[in-house]
Amino acid sequence: MTTTSSSASPLSEFSLIDRFFAHATRQGEQVALGIGDDCALLRPPAGEQLAISTDMLVEGRHFFADGDPRALGHKTLAVNLSDLAAMGARPLGFTLALALPDSDPAWLAPFAEGLAELADRHACPLIGGDTTRGPRNLCVTVFGSVPGAHALRRDAAQPGDDIWVSGTLGDARLALGALRKEWTLPDGALAQARRAMDWPEPQVALGLALRGVARAALDISDGLLGDLGHILERSSMSAQINVDALPRSPLLATQSPEIQRLCTLGGGDDYQLCFCADPVQRPRIEAIGDELGIRVTRIGTIALPDGRQTMLHLHDNTGAFVAADFKSFDHFQ
Amino acid sequence: MTTTSSSASPLSEFSLIDRFFAHATRQGEQVALGIGDDCALLRPPAGEQLAISTDMLVEGRHFFADGDPRALGHKTLAVNLSDLAAMGARPLGFTLALALPDSDPAWLAPFAEGLAELADRHACPLIGGDTTRGPRNLCVTVFGSVPGAHALRRDAAQPGDDIWVSGTLGDARLALGALRKEWTLPDGALAQARRAMDWPEPQVALGLALRGVARAALDISDGLLGDLGHILERSSMSAQINVDALPRSPLLATQSPEIQRLCTLGGGDDYQLCFCADPVQRPRIEAIGDELGIRVTRIGTIALPDGRQTMLHLHDNTGAFVAADFKSFDHFQ
Repeated sequence: MTTTSSSASPLSEFSLIDRFFAHATRQGEQVALGIGDDCALLRPPAGEQLAISTDMLVEGRHFFADGDPRALGHKTLAVNLSDLAAMGARPLGFTLALALPDSDPAWLAPFAEGLAELADRHACPLIGGDTTRGPRNLCVTVFGSVPGAHALRRDAAQPGDDIWVSGTLGDARLALGALRKEWTLPDGALAQARRAMDWPEPQVALGLALRGVARAALDISDGLLGDLGHILERSSMSAQINVDALPRSPLLATQSPEIQRLCTLGGGDDYQLCFCADPVQRPRIEAIGDELGIRVTRIGTIALPDGRQTMLHLHDNTGAFVAADFKSFDHFQ
Repeated sequence: MTTTSSSASPLSEFSLIDRFFAHATRQGEQVALGIGDDCALLRPPAGEQLAISTDMLVEGRHFFADGDPRALGHKTLAVNLSDLAAMGARPLGFTLALALPDSDPAWLAPFAEGLAELADRHACPLIGGDTTRGPRNLCVTVFGSVPGAHALRRDAAQPGDDIWVSGTLGDARLALGALRKEWTLPDGALAQARRAMDWPEPQVALGLALRGVARAALDISDGLLGDLGHILERSSMSAQINVDALPRSPLLATQSPEIQRLCTLGGGDDYQLCFCADPVQRPRIEAIGDELGIRVTRIGTIALPDGRQTMLHLHDNTGAFVAADFKSFDHFQ
C-alpha cells in the first residue's frame, strides 16, 4: 500500500488564504460556511433582498504597481462596500479572487491587513476566494442585505427632488492630477490629497440611515457628472446643478477655479454618495449628517426632462450657465 | 445654459454589456434588479442558504489566447456552475468581471453567446458585471440556493461511505497532454478529447438529486487525487481507491496504462462530481444515474485515518498497491 499525502505546499491556494487572510475571515452568524468548500454558504436575513456588486481592479490602470499594498487592500474592499452603501444595504460578506505574479509575503501581508481591517470594521468577512498566478488583478464581489422596499435604486428620482452629496468631492482627482504632472502640489498637500485617493471611506452608515429617506442614490466612483447621469438616465429625468455648491476640502478650495471644477465635477474615486430626496426630508437628512458626523450638501434639483434627452444643466452661484466637457472616466473610451 | 449629455459611448462599460451580454441577462423571478445599478438585487428562496463561489480565469494559464471564445464563454460559467452542483445548490444568477485588452466584437460576441447559452439552460442569468481594460482575465461569481441541511459539504464524509464519481475522468487531461506534446493523439481523437476540455458540462441536476442522499461532495477540477484529498482533510478521514474502477471514456481506455492512470488520477478540468454516501444509498444513487442518464461509479471507500494523517490508499483490481505521485494542479506550486 502506498499513500498520497493531501497536505498542501506552503504557497498553495488554501495555505495562501489561511496564511495571509485568516484575520479577514472572522465569521458572523450570517456565515453558515466560509472558505474551504466548493461554495460558501450565507444565511441572508429573512425577507430581505440580497445586494450584490463586483469590481475588478487591474494593476497599472486602477492602482500603481509600486503603491502601498496596505492601502490597496483597504481600497479593494472599500470600493465594493461603497456600492452596498449606495444601495442602502448592510454588508454580509465578500469573496476575493486574486491573480498575482508571485506570492511575495512583503506584498501579501500588508495587502491582507488593509483588507481585513476594513472588513472587520464593517462586520463583512471574507467568505470565499480564488488565487492564481497572472498579471496582478483583484476582483471582489460583495454581498449585503436590504429590505426590498428600502433599496436606494438609481431609477427612483422624482421631479423636484433635492440632489445631495456626502463629504467633499475632488481630492482624489487632485492627487491623481499631481501624480500625472497635470499640475503641481506641495508635498504636504499631495500627501493629504493622496489620503483621499488611497484610503476612501465607504459611506455604509449613511446608506443605512438613508433607507426610507432618500429615493435614489449611487456612489460617485467615476466623477459626479457621469455618475449623476446614470440616475438621470435610469429615472428619465434632468437635473440642475450649482457648481459653486459642490462641497470641497479646504485643500481643494485653494486651487485654481478650473482645477476645482475639473476635480469636483469630472474627478473620480470620490466614493461619496450622491442621492435624491423629497425636499420634505431636508431636516431629517441634515439631522442624519449631524448624527453621523458626515457633511451632507444640497447641490441641485431633479427636473422633468426637456424633450427626449436627459440633461445635466450646470450653473454657478449667479445663475450663469457653466460649460462642462469633463468626461466621466470610462474604461473603454 | 449648457448641457452635458449622459449618453454613453458605443463601447463604454454599460453599452458593452448591453450590446454583447443582453441575452445572458434574461431575468427570472429571483432577480429583483439586474445590471445597471450599484448592486444587483436577488430574492433568495425563503429559508434557504445562499451558496456562493468565485473563479478567476487568466489567459495563458487557464485558457489559450487563440482558443475558441464561444467555448471559453461556456467554460467560464460552467466551472462556476460546477461548484454549485458540488454543493447541491440550485443556480440563481452570476456576476462577470472582465479585463480585456480591447473590445473586439469578433471575440466578445461568441464569448457572450457561449456564456448565455449555458446561463439560459440553467436559468442562471447574468445579474451584474464590471469591465475594464487589462490583460485578459475573467472572474465569475455565481449564486445558488440550498436548504442548509441538504448542502453537500466537504466535511461530512463518514467511515464506510462509498466514494462515487460521475461521468468519466481524464479526457480533458488527455487533450492537454497532446497539446503540450507530452504524447500524441490522432486528429480525431484529439478533437474528441478537446471537447471534454473545452465544453465541460456542470453536473447541476445530479447535485440537486443528491440532496439528502450523498453526505459529502465536491467537483473534480484539479484532479481526483488532490480534490478527494480535500474531502479527506475536511472530514478527517482516509480513503481506499481502486484505480482500475475509475470510469474512463472508450478513447482514454485505448491509451497506455500510464497515461490512463495519470489522466484519471492526476488530471484536471473534469468537472465531474466526487461524492460520498452511505452504502444503503446504492440503489437510490444508481436510480438517479439512470434517470438523469449520467454514469455513476463506485471507486472506493472512506475509512478512519490510521494515525494522524489523512491518507489516500490506492490499489488495483488485484488488491496490489499502486504508487501515485501525480500532484494535484496547484496554481502556486
